[in-house]
Formats: sequence, structure tokens, C-alpha cells
Amino acid sequence: MPTPPPVEYADALPQVRAVFDDIKKTRNVPDVNNFWKYLAHDPKTLKRTWESVKEVMAPGTLDPLIKEMIYVAVSVTNGCAYCIATHTEAARRAGMSEAMFGELMAVVGMANETNRLANGYRVPIDDALKI
Amino acid sequence: MPTPPPVEYADALPQVRAVFDDIKKTRNVPDVNNFWKYLAHDPKTLKRTWESVKEVMAPGTLDPLIKEMIYVAVSVTNGCAYCIATHTEAARRAGMSEAMFGELMAVVGMANETNRLANGYRVPIDDALKI
Amino acid sequence: MPTPPPVEYADALPQVRAVFDDIKKTRNVPDVNNFWKYLAHDPKTLKRTWESVKEVMAPGTLDPLIKEMIYVAVSVTNGCAYCIATHTEAARRAGMSEAMFGELMAVVGMANETNRLANGYRVPIDDALKI
Amino acid sequence: MPTPPPVEYADALPQVRAVFDDIKKTRNVPDVNNFWKYLAHDPKTLKRTWESVKEVMAPGTLDPLIKEMIYVAVSVTNGCAYCIATHTEAARRAGMSEAMFGELMAVVGMANETNRLANGYRVPIDDALKI
Amino acid sequence: MPTPPPVEYADALPQVRAVFDDIKKTRNVPDVNNFWKYLAHDPKTLKRTWESVKEVMAPGTLDPLIKEMIYVAVSVTNGCAYCIATHTEAARRAGMSEAMFGELMAVVGMANETNRLANGYRVPIDDALKI
Amino acid sequence: MPTPPPVEYADALPQVRAVFDDIKKTRNVPDVNNFWKYLAHDPKTLKRTWESVKEVMAPGTLDPLIKEMIYVAVSVTNGCAYCIATHTEAARRAGMSEAMFGELMAVVGMANETNRLANGYRVPIDDALKI
Repeated sequence: MPTPPPVEYADALPQVRAVFDDIKKTRNVPDVNNFWKYLAHDPKTLKRTWESVKEVMAPGTLDPLIKEMIYVAVSVTNGCAYCIATHTEAARRAGMSEAMFGELMAVVGMANETNRLANGYRVPIDDALKI
Repeated sequence: MPTPPPVEYADALPQVRAVFDDIKKTRNVPDVNNFWKYLAHDPKTLKRTWESVKEVMAPGTLDPLIKEMIYVAVSVTNGCAYCIATHTEAARRAGMSEAMFGELMAVVGMANETNRLANGYRVPIDDALKI
Repeated sequence: MPTPPPVEYADALPQVRAVFDDIKKTRNVPDVNNFWKYLAHDPKTLKRTWESVKEVMAPGTLDPLIKEMIYVAVSVTNGCAYCIATHTEAARRAGMSEAMFGELMAVVGMANETNRLANGYRVPIDDALKI
Repeated sequence: MPTPPPVEYADALPQVRAVFDDIKKTRNVPDVNNFWKYLAHDPKTLKRTWESVKEVMAPGTLDPLIKEMIYVAVSVTNGCAYCIATHTEAARRAGMSEAMFGELMAVVGMANETNRLANGYRVPIDDALKI
Repeated sequence: MPTPPPVEYADALPQVRAVFDDIKKTRNVPDVNNFWKYLAHDPKTLKRTWESVKEVMAPGTLDPLIKEMIYVAVSVTNGCAYCIATHTEAARRAGMSEAMFGELMAVVGMANETNRLANGYRVPIDDALKI
Repeated sequence: MPTPPPVEYADALPQVRAVFDDIKKTRNVPDVNNFWKYLAHDPKTLKRTWESVKEVMAPGTLDPLIKEMIYVAVSVTNGCAYCIATHTEAARRAGMSEAMFGELMAVVGMANETNRLANGYRVPIDDALKI
């Protein structure tokens, strides 16, 4: 009972093609990447996920480069190899230099370390920061 | 066999006081927060951690506000309540508006969702992104 | 100093063979999968783990299909590639359709997202739900 | 610079009230819980998250009780105290007995254990399950 | 529909009392801690979990102090506040000095940091360590 | 925009070579492993990380074997495949027998299980262990 293969455009349902078309147009790419081709097995989740990603990653008070770096920070913390590969690429395309990548990794590493030091030492929240 | 209480300045060893003094001067705050007072039970780890944090969080190609938001993204993903409280405060002090916080949370939430969709659908890395 | 290879039936100790035999009989499969062949390096852990899994996954007030889907939800959240592969297969064998898999992934993704929104907004537990 | 307090209905913007009204009607509850009152600081994320949750948790090929139990499984694995409290309550309201809760916890615990045994023993994916 | 309260000895079923008695005797304590009193709602999981913990934590090629420190390392990494409290206490009772605790935390922090640096830099496994 | 390849000694900057030389001397190995060759893209992070690891992993009140096993426990819990491979190897070189590895895995697995049982049952911290 194998994992279903990715859905290619030629074989896709009309509602899947509509999402693929919007991804290609929005991102100016010739084809969608594997993530969308697998999600296409569930057209409702494909559509909802794409519309959410499109809204969340649009320029706002944070610019797209910052948003992509935050995406990388989360993906690295979770150890999602696929997401690290695609969002690091997206961040580079959005203008992340190697120096910026190095600083991003340094912060992510340090945060993961101090998160555990705070846990292990059972540090109580400072009075001024309580809610 | 209780957890040792935080180390206050008045009771601190000279090498601990030196770190506390540097934190207060660098951050322009009247007292260090609980995290450092607990770490002070291990002066070597206190010193190493502070020096690392100081180096990593200094302005570079990424400015301190961006670095603090990345710190929040990691802490939220890991569910470290203490770190969320302190680094959200630090990000606000560095200039994060409520609108920026909202966008930060939106990206962190979305990344955590799509990380799991990529895992669950067993999406293989696109050929162009393989190493 | 290489990782030891999997233990095959022909080379297994009697107490390991007894566990392998019980797995094959209980699951009606011709061979155990790699997980058990690696655990076999520690016969005590092999036996304890198998007996625990057998007890926990047996039909109860939840049927085996639901239990396998819960197993997938945890494995996807943790990003365990091996466990995702084997338990998704087990869920399919127990009757999970592609539509059910799609809904499972949608819930897992959404839960991972809202878990972080709750963390990041520091939402306090509603009074009625406090313990 | 304190964390903003929850947004109560009386103080909410019209677009926030519209979401609150829909939550109350859909779930047949007199008030929304804290999660939504905090998300209300970002009306766009409030609306998107509620619409996504509403779509994902609606009855489908999986019934709402199963979906709530999957939500609990993820929240327990991530250690999100708020989400554990609210979704365990939701699962109980949807019909989860204490016996079902016990079995749910047993599976979640076991999956978290064997996920790490698979990681630690570096178990390769069985040939038949490769993609 | 509140979370059921802990099960006290006086109100416990015979099979629960038998487990509580064995815990008290094995650990030489006057009462079991809250963990067991909550698990007691599911006598099968209580018994299985206690027997597994008893087997796993018994002296072997690793002594009980080392095992408790490993337990703390995992609990700190997962951010389980309850488990950090109880297993740090258990480690102290088994002989962990404050200096040992400090070194334990230093290693746990560093491992959490370098785990993410390895993820983020997408470091491939060295040829000699491949399986 | 590919991920930059590892930095080999022959192509390394003087400050990178100095770190590589110190790693090789400290560990008595003919070459550094991939982790350091990738970190070398950010000489500051390379230097800081190596100096921190060197300090943390040096013999202290815990011997290097125990420290390596704690490193493995964290890496297995986080599911970092690279770190599991390298630190399990390091632990074996430091004297970890297969029996010790088996006990280490058993504890790590059990801790991951009971961490979630404590989360799911919402077990409150025992009065004697509160801070």
C-alpha cells in the first residue's frame, strides 16, 4: 500500500490546477515544488494551506526576507529537512546573504541552548513579566 | 533537597559580579533578570553563556530587533514560557510593534503547520535543492 | 566502530526468536520489520517494548485503526521518518483511506500551528479548565 | 511594555465580533475562550485561524471525537499546557470516556518512546516502505 | 467535565494499591508522588509504566545516578516541568552534586545548540559513519 | 543558489585553519568532521562553538563518556540524525559498550514516554518540589 506519488499538473483536477496556477503566478516560477504536488492529494488542504501561506508571507510590517528567515528558524528548530531546504532557498532568493544566514544560525543555535538552560534551572518568570 | 535559590548580587562571587556588571552595562538595566541569577550557580556556564549571547545578539548584518524576533520564534516553537516572556519583552524594547508581533506569530504558526504536513506526506526534497 | 547490523532470525538468540515469533503470529506477517531487528541487540528492551506495544495497540475502547492514526499523529509531530513510514502503512492496512489520511494530516498540521499561537500569545488557561 | 490583555466582546472591533459570534454559534457556547480573545489582537490571524479550524474540525470521514483526540495527541507531544486543557475538554464534550482517554494517553506515550528508539538505533526504512 | 483528581491510597482499587505498595517499598518512600496518583485512573497503564520504569532504572552497566541524569537531560530537552522537578530531585538523592548538575545542564544546552547548527547547515553524515 | 560546500583545510582562512588544527590536536584525529567544515563558512560561529564544546566536554565532575551519552540522549530526543551518528561514535570511542548503549536507549525511550504521560494527565508538581 504505497505512498501515492506526487500529483503532476497534467493529471491534476481543475481545482488543483487553479491552485498550482496561482502559486506559479504569485511566485513567478515555472513549476510548483514537491510540497504542493503531494498536498494535492487533498485539494481542500492544498487550497487552504496555499491561501494561508500566501496571506501570511505577503509583505506587511515585516518584509518577505525577514519572514523567510523566521520560517527557517522554526524549520531548523523542528528539524524538518524538507522545509529547511526550501525555505533557506526562498530566503536566499529574497536577498539573504551568507553573512545573514550565519547570523540567523547563530541566533537559532543560541536560543535552543538557552531555552534548555531556562528549563533545567527551573527559572521563574521575573515579576515584571508575569501576566 | 531543594532547587538552590537565585544568586543575588550581594551574595555573588567576584567572577559572578563581573558578569552581572557587564550585563547591566551592556543592556543598560538596573538588575539582571532571573535567568542569570540562576545560571550564577555555575560561574563558568554563566560567563560562557553571557559572552556567547553578547556576541551573537550584537548588531551585525541583522539588526537586534530581527535577532530578538528570531529568538522569540525559536522559544515559541519549543514552548519555553520563560524565554517567550523575556525575549518578547526584549523585542518590544527593540522596537517590535504589535503589528509586527502579530505577523511574527502568524509566520511561526504557519511554519509549524507546514513542517508537519511535509513530514506526514513524506515529501522528498526537490532535485534542484538536494545536496 | 560501526553501528551493529540488524539481527536476523537465523542468528538470533532463543529469547529474541521467541519475540520475533510472537510478532509474526500476532501481526500475521512473514518477517518482523527493521525496528525489531535492531532492538534485538538488547533482548530485554526488545521483549519489554514488544509486550508494551502489543498491550497498548490491542483493540479496546479505541479500535486499532484509531490507535494507528494517533501513532502517526505523534510520529509526524516528532518528525520520526521511520515511524511515519511504518505506522502510516499500518494505518492503511487497518483501513485508513486516503481521505482519512488527508483529514488526519489537516488536524495534525492545525494542532501544531495553534499550539504555537497559544504559546506565543501566552494565553492563560481559562478559569473553568484550571486544575 | 506588558503583554496586551485579552480582547473582550464589548471592546472588540466589528470584524472581531463577527468571528466571536460565529464561534459562539458554531460551538453553541456563551463566550469564546481565552485563545480567541488573545488572537483578536490580530484580526486577520483570528479570522484565518478560526476559518481553518472550523473547516478542519468539521465532521468528515473522521468524526469530531476522533479529530479532538488527535488534537490532544499532538498537544501532549508538544507539551502545550493550554491546548491540552482545552482540547481534552473538547474531546470529553464530544464523547471521550475516561477509558478512551486512558487508551489515548497509552498510545501517545508509547509512540513517543518508540520514535526515540527508532532514532537512537538508527533504524533504516524497510525496503518495502521506501519512497 | 473536570480532570479527575489524583487517586489516593485510601480510595484505590486493589490492583492500584499493589502498584503503590511496590513503588513505596522499592523507593523507600512514605507515599507515591502525583504522577502515579494520576496514572492510577488507568490501572493497566499504571502497572505497565511502573514495571517498565522499575526495570529500566534498575542498576545495570549504568548506575542509577547516571540514569537519572539522562532522564533529566531528556526532560529538559522536552520542556516537561513536572519531569524536570521530580527527576532532578531523584538525581540529587542518588548523589548528583551541584557541580554535576551544572555540567549536566552545560552539556544539554550545548547539544541542543549544535543539533540545530547541524540541521541548519544541512551537514551530511560523514562517510565513515554512514549505515 | 546552492548550499555552499564544506570548507576543506586547503581552502580555509587562517582563523579557520587555527580552529581545525586545535580540533585535530585536542581529539587526536587526522581531519575534522563535516560539522566543522560547514560551520567554517562563519568563522566567528566556528570559533565560538568549538571553544564552547571544548570547555563543556572536557573532563570535570562528569567524565567524558557520561557527557557523550548525555549528548546522545539529547540528540535522539531531538531526532538529529547527524548528531546521533557522530556522538554515538564518540561515546563508543570513549568506552560505551553495546550493553551501555542499550541501557541508554531504554532510559531515553522511557523518559520520552513518561514526559508525555505527565503532560497528558496534567500532573501538578508535588508540593515538596515546588519552587
